[in-house]
Amino acid sequence: MVQPSRMPTIVSVPNISEGRRLDVVEGLADRLRSTPGVRLLDYSSDATHNRSVFTLAGEAGPLAAATIALFERTLEAVDLRQHQGAHPRLGAVDVVPFVPFEGVTMQDCVALATEIAATVADRFGLPVYLYEEASARAWRKSLEDIRRGGFEGLSRKMAQPGWAPDFGPATPHPSGGASVIGARPPLIAYNINLQTDRLDVARKVAAAVRHSSGGLRYVKAMGIALEERGIVQVSMNLTNYEQTPLHQVFDLVQHEAGRYGVSVLESEIVGLVPSAALLAAAQHHLRLDRFEARQILEQALRES
Amino acid sequence: MVQPSRMPTIVSVPNISEGRRLDVVEGLADRLRSTPGVRLLDYSSDATHNRSVFTLAGEAGPLAAATIALFERTLEAVDLRQHQGAHPRLGAVDVVPFVPFEGVTMQDCVALATEIAATVADRFGLPVYLYEEASARAWRKSLEDIRRGGFEGLSRKMAQPGWAPDFGPATPHPSGGASVIGARPPLIAYNINLQTDRLDVARKVAAAVRHSSGGLRYVKAMGIALEERGIVQVSMNLTNYEQTPLHQVFDLVQHEAGRYGVSVLESEIVGLVPSAALLAAAQHHLRLDRFEARQILEQALRES
Repeated sequence: MVQPSRMPTIVSVPNISEGRRLDVVEGLADRLRSTPGVRLLDYSSDATHNRSVFTLAGEAGPLAAATIALFERTLEAVDLRQHQGAHPRLGAVDVVPFVPFEGVTMQDCVALATEIAATVADRFGLPVYLYEEASARAWRKSLEDIRRGGFEGLSRKMAQPGWAPDFGPATPHPSGGASVIGARPPLIAYNINLQTDRLDVARKVAAAVRHSSGGLRYVKAMGIALEERGIVQVSMNLTNYEQTPLHQVFDLVQHEAGRYGVSVLESEIVGLVPSAALLAAAQHHLRLDRFEARQILEQALRES
Repeated sequence: MVQPSRMPTIVSVPNISEGRRLDVVEGLADRLRSTPGVRLLDYSSDATHNRSVFTLAGEAGPLAAATIALFERTLEAVDLRQHQGAHPRLGAVDVVPFVPFEGVTMQDCVALATEIAATVADRFGLPVYLYEEASARAWRKSLEDIRRGGFEGLSRKMAQPGWAPDFGPATPHPSGGASVIGARPPLIAYNINLQTDRLDVARKVAAAVRHSSGGLRYVKAMGIALEERGIVQVSMNLTNYEQTPLHQVFDLVQHEAGRYGVSVLESEIVGLVPSAALLAAAQHHLRLDRFEARQILEQALRES
C-alpha cells in the first residue's frame, strides 16, 4: 500500500469579514486554490456572522504567498465601514491563525505568522497584532482581548498605552481596520442551536460553559440570535479538544439549557475537525473504554 | 499529495476455535503475515469464547493462499473434541467470510469463497458449507442455521435431508468438524457488558434486541457469562451498520437492561470497524445533523 506523503504541513484558517456577498468569497477561494503548493481544504460562509472561514494546508512558503494574496484581494473588496454582522471583528481580514499539523513545530508556525505579519503591514499599510503563541506580550495574547471594542473602537484603543500594533501604522486602515495573526493548536468551531428564540437563554448557557466566566477550561462561547430561523445559538470555539472534548461541551450545554426548559435542536461544526475529536465522542457515547484507533478499518489498511 | 493506492481489495475475517493457547494463535498469525500480498490487519483472541478472529486484506489470489495455509495449520493444531468455549462452533476453522472492500464486487467474493471451499474440502477431507451471499440454498443461508447443533450435533445433522455439505465428505472431519465459508457485507462484532452477574438478564436483553426474536433488523445477539469477571455480556453481530447503527443498538440494550435495574458497564468492538460506523455514533450523540465526511481534517487532506 502506498503511504500518504508526510510533507511538513501547516494548516491556516483565515477568517474574513464577508459572509453575504458569495461572489466575493468565491473569487477569494479561486485565488487561494490557484496558489501552487497550497490546498484549499474547506471554506464556508455565514450570513448572520457575515463572515467566511477558509482552511488551507501546505508548506510555509506557499502558505505565505496565498495569505498575502488573500490580504490584497480582501482589502480591495471589503469595507468594514459598511459591515454588519453578529460576530466580533477588527479587520477585513480579521484573524489568521497558523496551526502545526504534521512534521512542523509550533515555533515554525510562530516564525511564519511573524514573517507574514511584517509583510502585510508593510505592503498594505495595515496595523497587525500578533496573538496566542506568536504574541510576545502577556496582556495581548488572547484574541478576545485584542479584538475587544471591535472595528468601531479601534482608533481609540490603538492610542492607549500598550496597544500600538506589533507591525504597521498606529492608526487603523480606513476600510480594513487591523488584523490579528498568530499561531495556535487546532481549534474546533462548534455551535449548538437551541429550540427557542430567547436570546437570554443562549447567553446564560454560554456564560455557564465558557472558561472566562467559570466554565470549561478550553471553551469560548457567546449567545447569538439566528434571526432568520427564529432560534438562538451558543456559538463556541473549543481551543483544546483533547482536554475539553466535544461531547462534554454538548452534554453541559444540554444540561444548562434544560434548566430553562429549552432543548438542544442540533449542533454544527464549522469547517474542519480532526477525526480524533469525533472518535472520542463515539467512544464516550458507546462507552468503548478499550478501543484503539488501529481498530478502524481504514487506518489499519493505511498502516499495514 | 500522494493518493493511497486503489488496488482491488477483499477483506477476509476467519474465525478459528482457539482463543486460549496464544502460542498457537501467534504461530497462525506469523503464517498469515508471511504470505506475500496479504496484510494481517488485526487479530484478537477471547478466552471465554475460546476463539480467535483474524482480519486479512489483499487481492483474491494471495488471500486464497493465506486462507488455505490457515486451514492446514489450524486443522493440525486444534481438536474440537477437546474444545470448550462460550461461542457456538462447528469447526476448528469455524467460519471464513469474504467482504468486498474496494474495487471488487460481492460476486467476486462469492467466486473466491466457492473456489477456496472446493480446495480445502478436497485437500483436507473437510466438509464445507457455503453461507450468506455464497449460499445457493435458501434454507441454509444464515450462519446460525448452519451452525445450529454445534460440533457435537454435526454428525446427526449432516445425515439429515438437505444438510449434505456443499463440498467434501458427508461426515464430519474427526477433529476439525466442518467449516462455513461465504461472502457478506461488513459486519461489526459488538459486545456490551452489563453490570450484573445475572445471565438471565443478558439473555432477556439479547432476545429483545435481536432480529430473530422480534428486535432490530440487522442484529444477532446472545447473552453469555464472563465468569472470570463476574459479569454478563450481550454478545452481538451487527450485519448492516448503515441500517441498524451502533448507537441505536447501544441505546436499546441500555434501555432494556434498565428494565431489570441493570446498568451498561462498557461496550467493546472486537476486531475492526469501518470509520463510518463510529462517525455515525458521534453525529448521533452530538446531533450533528448537517455534518459531511469531507469536514474531517484527515479526509480533506487526503482528498484535496
